[in-house]
Amino acid sequence: MSDKPLWAKDLPLDMELHRFTVGADPVTDLSLLASDAAGSAAHARMLGETGLLPEPEARALVGALRDLRAQALAGELVIRPEEEDGHTALEHALEARLGTTGRRIHLARSRNDQVQTALRLFMRERALDLGEAVHAAAAAFLDLARREEASALPGYTHLRKAMPATWGMWGAAFAEGLLEELEALPALWGRLDRCPLGAAAGFGSPVPLARGRSASLLGFTRVQASPMDVMNSRGRHEQALAAWIVSAAGTLEKALWDLNLYSTEAFGFISLPDAFTTGSSLMPQKRNPDALELARARCRELRGLAGVLAHLAGGLPSSYHRDHQFLKAPFVELVAKGEELFRVTARLLPGLVIHREACEAACTQELHAAARACRLAAEGLPFRDAYVQVAKEIQDGTFVPEPAAAAGLQLERTGESLDASRAWIRDRRAAIDTAFESLFAWGNP
Amino acid sequence: MSDKPLWAKDLPLDMELHRFTVGADPVTDLSLLASDAAGSAAHARMLGETGLLPEPEARALVGALRDLRAQALAGELVIRPEEEDGHTALEHALEARLGTTGRRIHLARSRNDQVQTALRLFMRERALDLGEAVHAAAAAFLDLARREEASALPGYTHLRKAMPATWGMWGAAFAEGLLEELEALPALWGRLDRCPLGAAAGFGSPVPLARGRSASLLGFTRVQASPMDVMNSRGRHEQALAAWIVSAAGTLEKALWDLNLYSTEAFGFISLPDAFTTGSSLMPQKRNPDALELARARCRELRGLAGVLAHLAGGLPSSYHRDHQFLKAPFVELVAKGEELFRVTARLLPGLVIHREACEAACTQELHAAARACRLAAEGLPFRDAYVQVAKEIQDGTFVPEPAAAAGLQLERTGESLDASRAWIRDRRAAIDTAFESLFAWGNP
Amino acid sequence: MSDKPLWAKDLPLDMELHRFTVGADPVTDLSLLASDAAGSAAHARMLGETGLLPEPEARALVGALRDLRAQALAGELVIRPEEEDGHTALEHALEARLGTTGRRIHLARSRNDQVQTALRLFMRERALDLGEAVHAAAAAFLDLARREEASALPGYTHLRKAMPATWGMWGAAFAEGLLEELEALPALWGRLDRCPLGAAAGFGSPVPLARGRSASLLGFTRVQASPMDVMNSRGRHEQALAAWIVSAAGTLEKALWDLNLYSTEAFGFISLPDAFTTGSSLMPQKRNPDALELARARCRELRGLAGVLAHLAGGLPSSYHRDHQFLKAPFVELVAKGEELFRVTARLLPGLVIHREACEAACTQELHAAARACRLAAEGLPFRDAYVQVAKEIQDGTFVPEPAAAAGLQLERTGESLDASRAWIRDRRAAIDTAFESLFAWGNP
Amino acid sequence: MSDKPLWAKDLPLDMELHRFTVGADPVTDLSLLASDAAGSAAHARMLGETGLLPEPEARALVGALRDLRAQALAGELVIRPEEEDGHTALEHALEARLGTTGRRIHLARSRNDQVQTALRLFMRERALDLGEAVHAAAAAFLDLARREEASALPGYTHLRKAMPATWGMWGAAFAEGLLEELEALPALWGRLDRCPLGAAAGFGSPVPLARGRSASLLGFTRVQASPMDVMNSRGRHEQALAAWIVSAAGTLEKALWDLNLYSTEAFGFISLPDAFTTGSSLMPQKRNPDALELARARCRELRGLAGVLAHLAGGLPSSYHRDHQFLKAPFVELVAKGEELFRVTARLLPGLVIHREACEAACTQELHAAARACRLAAEGLPFRDAYVQVAKEIQDGTFVPEPAAAAGLQLERTGESLDASRAWIRDRRAAIDTAFESLFAWGNP
Repeated sequence: MSDKPLWAKDLPLDMELHRFTVGADPVTDLSLLASDAAGSAAHARMLGETGLLPEPEARALVGALRDLRAQALAGELVIRPEEEDGHTALEHALEARLGTTGRRIHLARSRNDQVQTALRLFMRERALDLGEAVHAAAAAFLDLARREEASALPGYTHLRKAMPATWGMWGAAFAEGLLEELEALPALWGRLDRCPLGAAAGFGSPVPLARGRSASLLGFTRVQASPMDVMNSRGRHEQALAAWIVSAAGTLEKALWDLNLYSTEAFGFISLPDAFTTGSSLMPQKRNPDALELARARCRELRGLAGVLAHLAGGLPSSYHRDHQFLKAPFVELVAKGEELFRVTARLLPGLVIHREACEAACTQELHAAARACRLAAEGLPFRDAYVQVAKEIQDGTFVPEPAAAAGLQLERTGESLDASRAWIRDRRAAIDTAFESLFAWGNP
Repeated sequence: MSDKPLWAKDLPLDMELHRFTVGADPVTDLSLLASDAAGSAAHARMLGETGLLPEPEARALVGALRDLRAQALAGELVIRPEEEDGHTALEHALEARLGTTGRRIHLARSRNDQVQTALRLFMRERALDLGEAVHAAAAAFLDLARREEASALPGYTHLRKAMPATWGMWGAAFAEGLLEELEALPALWGRLDRCPLGAAAGFGSPVPLARGRSASLLGFTRVQASPMDVMNSRGRHEQALAAWIVSAAGTLEKALWDLNLYSTEAFGFISLPDAFTTGSSLMPQKRNPDALELARARCRELRGLAGVLAHLAGGLPSSYHRDHQFLKAPFVELVAKGEELFRVTARLLPGLVIHREACEAACTQELHAAARACRLAAEGLPFRDAYVQVAKEIQDGTFVPEPAAAAGLQLERTGESLDASRAWIRDRRAAIDTAFESLFAWGNP
Repeated sequence: MSDKPLWAKDLPLDMELHRFTVGADPVTDLSLLASDAAGSAAHARMLGETGLLPEPEARALVGALRDLRAQALAGELVIRPEEEDGHTALEHALEARLGTTGRRIHLARSRNDQVQTALRLFMRERALDLGEAVHAAAAAFLDLARREEASALPGYTHLRKAMPATWGMWGAAFAEGLLEELEALPALWGRLDRCPLGAAAGFGSPVPLARGRSASLLGFTRVQASPMDVMNSRGRHEQALAAWIVSAAGTLEKALWDLNLYSTEAFGFISLPDAFTTGSSLMPQKRNPDALELARARCRELRGLAGVLAHLAGGLPSSYHRDHQFLKAPFVELVAKGEELFRVTARLLPGLVIHREACEAACTQELHAAARACRLAAEGLPFRDAYVQVAKEIQDGTFVPEPAAAAGLQLERTGESLDASRAWIRDRRAAIDTAFESLFAWGNP
Repeated sequence: MSDKPLWAKDLPLDMELHRFTVGADPVTDLSLLASDAAGSAAHARMLGETGLLPEPEARALVGALRDLRAQALAGELVIRPEEEDGHTALEHALEARLGTTGRRIHLARSRNDQVQTALRLFMRERALDLGEAVHAAAAAFLDLARREEASALPGYTHLRKAMPATWGMWGAAFAEGLLEELEALPALWGRLDRCPLGAAAGFGSPVPLARGRSASLLGFTRVQASPMDVMNSRGRHEQALAAWIVSAAGTLEKALWDLNLYSTEAFGFISLPDAFTTGSSLMPQKRNPDALELARARCRELRGLAGVLAHLAGGLPSSYHRDHQFLKAPFVELVAKGEELFRVTARLLPGLVIHREACEAACTQELHAAARACRLAAEGLPFRDAYVQVAKEIQDGTFVPEPAAAAGLQLERTGESLDASRAWIRDRRAAIDTAFESLFAWGNP
């Protein structure tokens, strides 16, 4: 059967073990190849500039890596199982193109800092992608809030009717919640914006390198100085990015659950566009909110994947262990699934059909009990006594609701903050693009 | 880049959402297709036997499903993305072969009980595979214990030398630990050996079905009676199987950590065969125990995957929700990765080279301190005083070790219990094979 | 502030570290003291019977331990922080009562097997308590099913109306789901019903012990033979019990979520008795279903606590490490919280007020669409065509519902199985009580 | 037995449920009482300043809360079980002191924003405490690096000897790793430095409040504007703080594992001071590194506790649910245990005895293989060929090691960055102290 482990019964032991050891790397590393090519180009150029490689050979390497990066981005580079991982595949590809020159690239580096560099570049890029996706979701909530600013919605606590609310308040809450994540992005960036290249196997290079130069060629602001900390940060940064994703998803989950409930027959507050529903194989009448449910489940799945990273990253002494290999696949999965969630949510919100009358009708008068108690208290009755009096009025049937002052939503200000976050993301991306162009321009044509 | 989410920017909304909703199902369901074909055959035959379908059409369906099952087992059946899942693909395949007859199969069932049946059959089969793999690992530990029964090994607590031990004791410990898991397998089987078919969407079939007949056609001993519990057990059984795997892996992890330490230069107790080690890209002298490290990491990975299931299965009201779809992929992954771990371990142990002299040399005399204290106590000194006296002797340098009675290892008895567990597994498998042969023999040739 | 860590700034280093090392043990071990006294009594008696201790002293120890156990059960035994743990406290108490004789008890054992024995006895007892609590919850669901067997309830999938159901079906589903757990209890028992005493520090006793005798004195059926496996099973059994609790809680969680939804204003199917609701501090009209919400959250909390055990138990080489100490507190917490959940649920169900008319009114006619499609198919139309026809009828407004055959609920059979599970539990408890009485009867009066 | 759940069999249902509902709050809330008093004082003063309360009564409330806060800080305030939680206890205490005036405090707030405010203040304070504790640990690593800057230490990858390193490099790695956390602290602060007060039950206050004034009275820079987001951030901030603690602990874990290994007899690189070791109850010769092991286990425990928060915080619709109550206890536990870990580590490091000769002796010549290969490559041989040549030299026994250039450690720069982080922490604390003094100065004497 297709999910059978790869352990074909008749394989010789060493082939079986090669399969186990290599695992999913030839597939997973495809995600990292383009980043690896960039990191390798910076390494080659730095070696050339410092005289550790002859400049023409260094320029040849950078030129070849530019092509390989383009191939990788186009999905045209493959990693053969016997090559074990993307790093080996890249060195092989260089040797195939440049002969002896290709055999020079690995001077003063190790696969340990090579993979950390590739991962760092990958994380840096995906952090920006994720930031944009969260921004898109936040903007969609804000749009909803603007569109339905004053549309009534019962406010629930404990899933019981509590106080009057509006769809504007609902949308603004999620826009602001996601804005909190966007405002935390620069700190995450601060962890990632440090170049690990030059750490070699985790104890530095035996020949002196210009680590600051490698860093700036790759658009990093700083060097991650301690080579042992470069290795110790394997897993740490994956978890930092995962925590950020999971936090944003945790906020989204509440909105998705709300929409799921509000679209049941019992609540009846909203309808979902057809594209977001599916039918049943047995029951002809059904329209099920599958996309909403899957998005909700995705939030729990992301939490689970972060837990996988926690298990894999922990429990080890310092430095590199092959255990770290298993961090790559769930991390790449988590990042892709997180971005997908944020993008789906952004696409979902514009299509919601809000049944304003049903929402209004659900705003029954007891929602205003707190308002009356507060007004009585503002007029001088101790609040605890006002509370008791209103409770009694409700019991007696003498309670008459009174409207509460609607709080301003500050949608304008939230919009400006979202814009600022997006501008920050775009500035980062532009700086990286510039650095990469300049890095590769040095290579042979 | 290759790990990009599928959200191509220019896709129309409904295609984007179709992709999100379908997700990995067309791939994951390949693991379930053969089981689904068997479950569908039992359903069709039961419908034919009870007169809900004309018998010739039922026989035609069973015959076609026999072929489709063979194709699925050979990896020749595909699921097209627009088919969403394997259940739809199977119904399409039946319709393509049998025309109108194919459109009859779904009477009185739902994809909800169809997937539960396929998963149950899958779990049942993989529980036996896993049992055999754990048996293989346990037997390899027992072989090692037999081979090195009296070879000395320092016993450590807190990773500090504690008391004398042997490699025989070490091997026996893991054989017995895994035997505990094998002895718990029948209870896990008891959860799985109940047929969900006939639960339909979770509220039973509107037309009366012969559920007991479906069950026995599939080799189940019992029916899972409550249709709502059939749906509520989605995730429950996945987690039960996962807990079993994780428990066995938790025992293995200790052995793998031990071997990792014992093969360091500092301990120097064992060498690993070449097939289990790899080199470094930078350091010419290195031989690294990658397979051991990955097997160790696998134990943590399995724990993490069980956590994914816990997150996904929880947090929902009763009955089916589309959230459940996400349970399939990590579950299939966990099962395959668990089996791989047990098989690799079984392959690893025979090749270990034990350096008997180094082990012996590490058995320094203070390991015998407890033995002396116990003998003094057995001769009448209160143990707490004997303890103080021996501590003083060690401090004074007057301590003379004395040999302890070696405890018998009961390797014979452990071997017999392992054999019994294996026989139980094989009996189960034979019974299922017989049931399936008989089920499909009814179909058109 | 009260949650400040114990690190008073002015403490000398060794006192600070003593506090850290001892941690919560003096509190946590209170849960284990009575079990420890029983394990110690069996050890002392075995030593006396085999001549390793003079019989009169052994009888004195057993007698004193009988008293100490009674004190522990009455909550009258304390562990002073400077005693570190319950094992030390017990030895001190024996010495205080019996002088030199107290200093003899620790011959041929270690705190390592002492704590494993105490934990095993604790687990054995709590497994039975938990079984009774789950039985109580299952019986309460069954009672509800009997009481409301035919009361209508819409069946939901995806939280959308699907097919007709009944409160009887709902109650039966949870009774059967919990019955699955009760039927898995004997396998869990099989793991626990093996005596670890005599493993000493994990490498066996230097003087020969009658381990089978110790086992039978404590009411164990078997000895856990491998002393290293005794240590390796630290954490394994905790997790096995935790997995069992979490599985039962996972089933309950669905019922609790259902009740939470069904008691909202939007659904309006049930009311909770006043004892299960609380008010708001601000909103005079509110009645909140706090107990239901906390029970629901408890299910997630238990899952989280099982995760704590997974983290703590994993990631270590074989044998004892002080890390294991941290397993005790979350394990004891998990067990107590699990039992509380099962008991609260059992108390909650009898008080539910079911609004039969509201439930009936929610059973709108489209719930019967699948029934009609199935009947058309049973009459000869291919099901897929019947499905299309009914979908069209619904769209046209020509659909006329038709009643489905109600499936039998087998409440009687479920009740008998529950009774059998409870009888099994009570037999186990009676056997242990008998063993303990006989064990202590040997002690001095 | 002492861990029995509180469900005494004979209690009336409502008392049992009260116990379940109240749970650990009367104990847990003790950690929050002082913060709650401050938050309440700001609320009262804002009400007084805006005319919603008569100023003299507001001043009386602030004065009484100043006293209550002092009592809470001194551990002298208790919460009776029948009071349910700290918020109720505080309102009772005000009423007891001030009569009717005490019944006025709850105007326009809910326990929902009251607890969020108390938690926010608690988090803010503990984030600074945690920052100082991490700083102390980082500084201790840096001190070690300075003290042993050039002391040799073999560098390991895969736990196999790899390249030459130093204790200076080792200490610097952890100082820099923890510095990364300290540099991420301001972003965490950014999440916390927003005042939730005024959100009431999550839908804002029915009477207009001066939320900005409340915020500045409590030393917050910003208001958390959306009242629904205030409720939605319950759990989000707990997890953000937990992720920060877990990340720092993940770095520490590696150091603790290293020290554990390096202090085994097999490695023999270090000794631990006596205060960090304990003996065995059975084996007279033992000195076990219990404090190290517990600190290592603590890192896994913290990861597990973060998982508890993840389970509890997720899986719910927006707004408040009583489920949130269960977040408090594990959060307070996690924070206290994290701080304890950082402090113990800081105390542990100064006492390490490094056996320089043993470390030196372990630095065998093959550690220099990469250096030779790099030098050959720097002189012109393609690195891959140099690698092969050195491997051959080692096999032939002709390899002669050559010293590598020692990389500079930048201890000075790391020290300056640590100082800056600490100064940032102290500035924050000073600002809060000033705000609180000014807040309470307004109260009646």
